[in-house]
Amino acid sequence: MNPRSAVDLAQALIRCPSVTPAEGGALALLAHVLETAGFAVERPVFSAPGTPDVENLYARIGTQAPVLVLAGHTDVVPPGDEGRWTHPPFSGEIVDGVLYGRGAVDMKGGIAAMLAAALDFVATRPDFPGSIAVLITGDEEGPAINGTVKLLDWAKAKGERFDACILGEPTNPERLGDMIKIGRRGSLSGTLVVHGKQGHVAYPHLARNPIEGMVRLLAGLKATPLDEGTDHFGASNLEVTTVDVGNPATNVIPGEARAAFNIRFNDLWTPASLEAEIRRRLEEAAGNAVSFEASFEDTNAVAFLTEPNAFVGQVQDAIEAQTSIRPALSTTGGTSDARFIKDHCPVLEFGLVGQTMHQIDERVPVAELEQLQAIYGRVLEAYFAG
Amino acid sequence: MNPRSAVDLAQALIRCPSVTPAEGGALALLAHVLETAGFAVERPVFSAPGTPDVENLYARIGTQAPVLVLAGHTDVVPPGDEGRWTHPPFSGEIVDGVLYGRGAVDMKGGIAAMLAAALDFVATRPDFPGSIAVLITGDEEGPAINGTVKLLDWAKAKGERFDACILGEPTNPERLGDMIKIGRRGSLSGTLVVHGKQGHVAYPHLARNPIEGMVRLLAGLKATPLDEGTDHFGASNLEVTTVDVGNPATNVIPGEARAAFNIRFNDLWTPASLEAEIRRRLEEAAGNAVSFEASFEDTNAVAFLTEPNAFVGQVQDAIEAQTSIRPALSTTGGTSDARFIKDHCPVLEFGLVGQTMHQIDERVPVAELEQLQAIYGRVLEAYFAG
Repeated sequence: MNPRSAVDLAQALIRCPSVTPAEGGALALLAHVLETAGFAVERPVFSAPGTPDVENLYARIGTQAPVLVLAGHTDVVPPGDEGRWTHPPFSGEIVDGVLYGRGAVDMKGGIAAMLAAALDFVATRPDFPGSIAVLITGDEEGPAINGTVKLLDWAKAKGERFDACILGEPTNPERLGDMIKIGRRGSLSGTLVVHGKQGHVAYPHLARNPIEGMVRLLAGLKATPLDEGTDHFGASNLEVTTVDVGNPATNVIPGEARAAFNIRFNDLWTPASLEAEIRRRLEEAAGNAVSFEASFEDTNAVAFLTEPNAFVGQVQDAIEAQTSIRPALSTTGGTSDARFIKDHCPVLEFGLVGQTMHQIDERVPVAELEQLQAIYGRVLEAYFAG
Repeated sequence: MNPRSAVDLAQALIRCPSVTPAEGGALALLAHVLETAGFAVERPVFSAPGTPDVENLYARIGTQAPVLVLAGHTDVVPPGDEGRWTHPPFSGEIVDGVLYGRGAVDMKGGIAAMLAAALDFVATRPDFPGSIAVLITGDEEGPAINGTVKLLDWAKAKGERFDACILGEPTNPERLGDMIKIGRRGSLSGTLVVHGKQGHVAYPHLARNPIEGMVRLLAGLKATPLDEGTDHFGASNLEVTTVDVGNPATNVIPGEARAAFNIRFNDLWTPASLEAEIRRRLEEAAGNAVSFEASFEDTNAVAFLTEPNAFVGQVQDAIEAQTSIRPALSTTGGTSDARFIKDHCPVLEFGLVGQTMHQIDERVPVAELEQLQAIYGRVLEAYFAG
């Protein structure tokens, strides 16, 4: 296995069955490869009540600033029905120029391209002016409690300071080079209970139907857009994810109705300001007519944006030089560990094409892995050129 | 037991455990009493696939027109937790002037008052100019398939013709004499399914949330009143009885939403015209934006009204003479067997006070039973006076 080959390294990582929270040998493999290349490697394990212990990896080469962080996760989602895979999910088989396996794009392929590029760079430029830090967690697909967020705090407590970070999550919708993510929307979930008064449908004046109240509240929540979006974000969006009454009796007016909703929001909002706006909308829709309770779940998923800076430009240039595609700067999609990293340094995300992630027969063309390694190589050259 | 005493007869009936569909000895008792008084009695049993066989009773005295029908049911709802009854539900105990037992008001008490009055009447006026028919079913509290509706068809097939009917259901909200029912609203139930497209909340443009469509449809159904009521009916009313999605995942836009509704409607509507109006409202609310299906359940519960006629006036007069209360003419409440009788002759309902019906410790003051017997006696006198 040549660790300076993204393909070799990705194949070796896929063969480690590291379904969250299992380490599966993946971090041990990376530790060995990085140490061999001269990185100082540490393997902190983090714990929290009610969650599994999680192994993590932190490595660094160089002592000077600036410090560029290469970040990712080796844990993967379960393979599902293994019998439905064309090639076993942990076999890492390459067939007709395509590497198959769980994590091929999310994101063992990304880590492999990133680290192969880094190993190549430090071997050919041992005197580069700065440092490379490697931050790998085994808890991105799980509760994300004993992973990146704690690893960052741990590193900070050690005195580590970072200047920029590239996270190798799959970011391209269609083709390698399509899209860099420079931020993510926040996510806020809530539940709604409307209290009515149970009764017989023949005597509605003796009852109060909570479904009418719920319809009013839900219509009020969606009546006007939360915003029109910002320079780098689309409009914030609320989706009602369920409404449940569970009344089987056609002649009974129920006593209670429940609903849940989730909001993906842009940088015009904080979770607190958004909760206040939602409560305002609910109270306005309810007036004196509807008795309800709303509760919100704090998931620490705030919206954030890395303002397009020189580093973002360097990554765009590297991608364009390699692929002839000028990548779009986007903030779409779900949450990622970038929401934790952004508190420590500017972070952007760029990796493989996400189409097969989390699916049966997750896979990546070998040529794309090689191209991604070349892109990361160009990023390292550019970042440490100045 | 003196069958010309409503109290004696009610007590005897309560002691027959005739929970639907059990006959429990109640019809045999009535058959014996009526035959002894000179009525011709028949006991047809009706059957239908998937429902229990049900015993019924038809009796008649007299051969001439007009034929006044006294109608009711001897079946009762289950007693529930018998240990919670102050007096056992089938004991017919009288304590402090109150008769306790399942069916005391709904409606063994009503039948007892009605038939005690009739026995008294035919004994003292053996030459009355007309006929009295007695129509008793054991299937009012059940599916109502093998009861009154078939008994009426069976009588019609025999050549029986009826001129007026009084059904002894409990009709008074507070005091004996409050209310005669001269019609009932109809009932129509329906279900609604809104089809969306499942997806991730972070990518709403790739999904279509059926809850938004459902909110639009339900708001559209209730946007304007169905009507303002008529001379003898309140406004028709739609209640949404349940909404169910059942999606536990806060990050998933569901694929489908379901709801059910029930409409209690007045004589401005037939089930068909109402279904057409509901479909029109749904289609208007849906526009091209919502994909839905609506289905309706035909329960044969049409709205009907017995126009206040001379017979209604006679019953009002009888009540007022006995109680000093002029009863209101109402069409409120749930359905009853009057919905079947109205196809054969004008029908009104008058009986006891309904407050304890279907409850633990169902009960009736002995004095009210005696008053009701006296009222029915006055009705018979008045009806056959002309």
